[in-house]
Formats: sequence, structure tokens, C-alpha cells
Amino acid sequence: MNYRAVETTGEYVARLETGADWRAQIESLADAVEADAAWFTALGAVQDAELWFYDQDACEYEPVAFDDPLEVASCVGNVSWLDDERFAHTHAVLSDDDGTAYAGHLNEATVWAGEVYLRTFEAPLEREYDESTDLNLWL
Amino acid sequence: MNYRAVETTGEYVARLETGADWRAQIESLADAVEADAAWFTALGAVQDAELWFYDQDACEYEPVAFDDPLEVASCVGNVSWLDDERFAHTHAVLSDDDGTAYAGHLNEATVWAGEVYLRTFEAPLEREYDESTDLNLWL
Amino acid sequence: MNYRAVETTGEYVARLETGADWRAQIESLADAVEADAAWFTALGAVQDAELWFYDQDACEYEPVAFDDPLEVASCVGNVSWLDDERFAHTHAVLSDDDGTAYAGHLNEATVWAGEVYLRTFEAPLEREYDESTDLNLWL
Repeated sequence: MNYRAVETTGEYVARLETGADWRAQIESLADAVEADAAWFTALGAVQDAELWFYDQDACEYEPVAFDDPLEVASCVGNVSWLDDERFAHTHAVLSDDDGTAYAGHLNEATVWAGEVYLRTFEAPLEREYDESTDLNLWL
Repeated sequence: MNYRAVETTGEYVARLETGADWRAQIESLADAVEADAAWFTALGAVQDAELWFYDQDACEYEPVAFDDPLEVASCVGNVSWLDDERFAHTHAVLSDDDGTAYAGHLNEATVWAGEVYLRTFEAPLEREYDESTDLNLWL
Repeated sequence: MNYRAVETTGEYVARLETGADWRAQIESLADAVEADAAWFTALGAVQDAELWFYDQDACEYEPVAFDDPLEVASCVGNVSWLDDERFAHTHAVLSDDDGTAYAGHLNEATVWAGEVYLRTFEAPLEREYDESTDLNLWL
């Protein structure tokens, strides 16, 4: 296992903008505070969403789209550098009016309301190609 | 997007009391440590639960009740001031004996066992009415 | 409610090894950094998984096995001492290629890719037998 001790350089709470994209908002926050690496948890609600599932045989993401409002019951992720841009790797658990849960890698979602806690780290995290998973991983 | 740098004033771990209300317990913890703002993650199990789903058209919460024991697979939330009381905005993912997941805004739930990590921030978070979502939001 | 103020002694990010066990990897990390108590959040994907549901009447865990690849949409847990070993109490929300979510106490799972943030605390957490729940709880 690869691991690294990190030094926290800042802590932030944010409220995401209604109508904006959930993940892009987190990346905007990361840009605004010049995060080279960060970890976050979040909660809220979205107006729609696209989750991705990684097919470990085909080694590609498959999208699953939701066109209705959903709660964001959990959101965990981190910010790293990927192809010279800040990328918010974002996983989420969503739920509908029955309380039924849907989950996965959150590609995009239109914010209804969102509350985020983000902490930034001194040493940059940079994603690089990993042959065994065909994914871009850090460390 | 609205965001604010925060200064952590304390960190706490807590074990919730069997038979008490999950959210009220977190609010009691926030009262005990005099939190004006806080963020938490938690896990455990409950004896029953009431989740809320926000209807973004009607702008009101719809309850979904569960009368059976459930795992608390994830719980993320924050503490802020709302109408002069500390309010723990609590989202949770629950699961039953098949592993089926249910999720949403956690209004109430009877604790079986609960483990919480909470960090408190110096600057208060205060919820105020937001016209576009008909919700009480902070920042 | 029992609670305790904690002092953070270290913060770490880790990438879990493809093919290893998810929970054992977190326990290896805890061993490597000599954690006497810790809290973590994580995300990623696994090749299979065994979730446990606690039967509150029989007071025993029931396993639910999954043999297919799943996203780890959320993972929250903590590290404490149990029977002289570091134990990572790990809850997770998993999801399949439909976005359907499954959740519970994560006993074991084969890592595809995993990203963890862990913070260690100075005062040890030690689990002891609790009569009312028949579980090993700390504090």
C-alpha cells in the first residue's frame, strides 16, 4: 500500500450554487483556494445526476442517468491534479422519494442545494496512468 | 459559490446512547461542547428511522418511515444555528438484512449503536431563509 | 452520551493495493503509522464484497455476499484496539452497474482501487463488551 503523511493548509465550508454542476462547483472551490490536494465530504440535493460505474473487465466507465430530483445522502471525494487541471474525484449516494438509494462515481449533477467541507493539503496529489486498473491514480 | 475558511476549535469522538434519538444525540453533543458550527461523519445501527425527501416542486419534505432495524452505513452532516437552536443537518444511508440501501435526510432514528467524529469551527454557521429553494441555508 | 475531545497526531492519504483486502489494508495502514485510534473516510471500487447486517434480536451478524465488481460510493469508519489488535470498524455503501446501492458493515472486499483519508488521535480507543447490544464498543 502507498501512503503519505499530509499537512493540512486550510479548511473550508462551502454552499454550492443552485443550478450549477455539483462536481464543477467543488473544482471551482479547489481553484479558488488554490488546492494542490484536498479531501471533502458533502451532502445536499440535486435536480438530476449522472453516475458512472467502472466496468473492471472492459476497463471503461458506463454512465447511468437520473432525470429526477434526488437527495445527496453522502458525498466523499478528493481533489488532485489530472492533465494539468484540478479534478474532484467524487463518489455519491443519492436517493429518491421512496428512500431508495443509488450510488457510484458522480460525473455530473445539477445542484439544488449542497454543503461541502473541504480540507487542503500541502503536498500535491497528481494522478498518473495505472496499468493494472486502466485508471488514473495518485501515489 | 459561497465559501469560508474555517478554524477548527475542537475535535471529538462520541458514542451515541442506545435507545436515544440519533439526531438529538448529535445536537446534545454539539450543546455539550458549545459548538457554533461543526462538521461530522458517523456510522452505526438504528432500531427504526424516518428519512425525509425534499420535493423540489412542492418545496416541502416528504417523510419515509422504517420500522425495522437498519445499519447506518454512512452519516454525514453539520451543525449550525437555526431559530436560536443548534441544528444537526444529518444525511444518512441505511441498510437492511439483504444489504439493500435506503437514504436521505435523517429526521429521527432510535440509536442501537452509533460512533461519531465531530469537529467544531470558530465562526458560527447560521441558517437563513433562501427564496430559490425554500430551505434554510447557511453562508 | 459518552464523548471525548481528541488530539490529532497525524493525517494520511493512502491508495489501497489492487487485489488486497479493503479492511486489512486499512488495518495495515493503521499498523504502519502506529495508530492507537483513528477516523477515516474512503472511496473506490472492489471486485467482490461481504457486508454484515447486525440482527438486533439474535445479537449476531448475518453476512451478505456479493461476487461481482462494485463501486465503493462511501466508506466511513474508525480504528480502535480490539483483543490486542488494531480493528478498522468499516461501514460502506457499494453500487452495481445499474447504480443500485447496497450497504452495511464491511467485513471483507477485494480492492480494485481505493483512496483513503485517515487521521490518527493521541488517546487510544479500546473496544470492550457492551451488554445491552452484545457488541464491542469504545468509550
